[in-house]
Amino acid sequence: MVMPSISPSAKAYGSARSLLADHLHRTPLFSATLLGKRVGAELYLKCENLQKTGSFKVRGALHKLVTLDEASRRRGVVTISAGNFAQALAWAAREASVPCVVVMPAGASEAKAAASRGYGAEVILHGTVVEAFQHARDLEAERRLTFIHPFDDIDIITGHASVGLEILEQARDVTAIVVPVGGGGLIAGIAGVLKLARPDARIYGVEPEGACAMRKSLDAGHAVHIDNIDTIADGLAPPMAGELTFEFVKEYVEDIVTVSDGEIVEAMGVLLGRAKVLTEPAGAAGMAALLSGCIPLEAGDRVVAVLSGGNVALADLQQFACKWTD
Amino acid sequence: MVMPSISPSAKAYGSARSLLADHLHRTPLFSATLLGKRVGAELYLKCENLQKTGSFKVRGALHKLVTLDEASRRRGVVTISAGNFAQALAWAAREASVPCVVVMPAGASEAKAAASRGYGAEVILHGTVVEAFQHARDLEAERRLTFIHPFDDIDIITGHASVGLEILEQARDVTAIVVPVGGGGLIAGIAGVLKLARPDARIYGVEPEGACAMRKSLDAGHAVHIDNIDTIADGLAPPMAGELTFEFVKEYVEDIVTVSDGEIVEAMGVLLGRAKVLTEPAGAAGMAALLSGCIPLEAGDRVVAVLSGGNVALADLQQFACKWTD
Repeated sequence: MVMPSISPSAKAYGSARSLLADHLHRTPLFSATLLGKRVGAELYLKCENLQKTGSFKVRGALHKLVTLDEASRRRGVVTISAGNFAQALAWAAREASVPCVVVMPAGASEAKAAASRGYGAEVILHGTVVEAFQHARDLEAERRLTFIHPFDDIDIITGHASVGLEILEQARDVTAIVVPVGGGGLIAGIAGVLKLARPDARIYGVEPEGACAMRKSLDAGHAVHIDNIDTIADGLAPPMAGELTFEFVKEYVEDIVTVSDGEIVEAMGVLLGRAKVLTEPAGAAGMAALLSGCIPLEAGDRVVAVLSGGNVALADLQQFACKWTD
Repeated sequence: MVMPSISPSAKAYGSARSLLADHLHRTPLFSATLLGKRVGAELYLKCENLQKTGSFKVRGALHKLVTLDEASRRRGVVTISAGNFAQALAWAAREASVPCVVVMPAGASEAKAAASRGYGAEVILHGTVVEAFQHARDLEAERRLTFIHPFDDIDIITGHASVGLEILEQARDVTAIVVPVGGGGLIAGIAGVLKLARPDARIYGVEPEGACAMRKSLDAGHAVHIDNIDTIADGLAPPMAGELTFEFVKEYVEDIVTVSDGEIVEAMGVLLGRAKVLTEPAGAAGMAALLSGCIPLEAGDRVVAVLSGGNVALADLQQFACKWTD
């Protein structure tokens, strides 16, 4: 007996994409000829750093809100995020006229908190990531809000999958896709549509060495929590892999590899200097893996590297810039 | 009697664009909501910094080469350029299988010389800009090459006009376009198609204070040469306005305004931080003029700022980055 797939249907993916099309960018996908020569493949860059709010996360966030029932939308939503998902949900909530509370850990980037406030969300800075998570669940109960998980939710994943549908239109003959992995929502969405349309194509995830919950989950055979997060890529640093996203990764993803913070910073410089686009550390992780040779490429490969976000403060950028050599 | 227009026909513009479509990017045009609020208009960014070779110049260069007669193509071409046009012609010559010599002033950016060599051109570094210009004309005679003027040529202008046709498709209801001005080839091309399709829309040019040949030409009533070029925007620093481009500007352009180098560097930081795209100083000049308030805007304006190029060395970028405050 064939087990039913965990992935939504082609129709569900298509419908999510239509819902989003009027509100969000179909981000550009560029050929990067010289960079491709350097990594040994025909290379394309999918620029989600140029998406509204500066990252792909607004796709899942908006899809979640528009598919929520009317009563829940009226009461409002609450989430926990260290950054990009906070901004994305705040933006989407304004777009969908849904009240929105965002809990961020006390150490979160002030720029990302300010951006979320700017979109009209109530922003609460609270404790560590784990404490902030609990505080969001408390607010859910106290204020009768709907808790929105930043990645481990099928409607979020289905929204993120629109990145994959666009890639399939923009680079029809793609043979491999390389995706940065935090909680795993983006790679789950892209992998889901890729395996429906092009089961022969490969998909690889990339995590920072200092925050590789998905790699450890694959090794353990189940989604794990990790302690001691240590990476500059704040967009890839949740303390756990998602339960649901882990299932997608286990079923559809070729492999999860890791890169060092140094490799990430170098890749940011290469993307800026050669491709003229600004990525945050998280957004450059896929390119870092390609440049460092840890993605297994085959002759004739046509590879898409997903640049997942571009929200880096200029002060941080100034620090990274000192390390660029190329 | 109505004088015949200096501008090519709609058919000629359309034909140039078709010739280029298979080889070049239709670069993205983005809405920039927050930046628009800051300048007081609905704002769109036309990203020619994401064009092949990192600037718009490849449009005119390739159009010139494919419209050249067969015998001239076989013998080869020579040009003079301090940077972007050298790279662009070298790339286009490889694409069109035309031998190419590029003369650059001795002080030209080593990165731009190396890029031109990388595309297969013979690169000759020679004296000042004026001496390099003469050397290119000498080579034209000695080697029976065809001299390609970097901007003052109707086929170059007609190729650059494809930027304008794309803008008219991507932002149909545009009311004003702001364009960086060096020799004037880009603004001539865009202005030509804009005035055919949307005679009511306005177009503004922006020059650095330290290299404002077109501004001075308008004041003098004819195209002038200037001495004492002093600007970080090497892409906007030719020592003269074109004779032909001046006629387009005089006939079609609303006004030419100037910005300081400080305003340009600030605009580069804003574009990087807010829009996630890297511009070279020349590419940020239009945005600098909008941010500093020297473009006269009207209520309800829908403005396109053309980001004309993104070729900045990382070492220079590190220096600029120190000055960014936002």
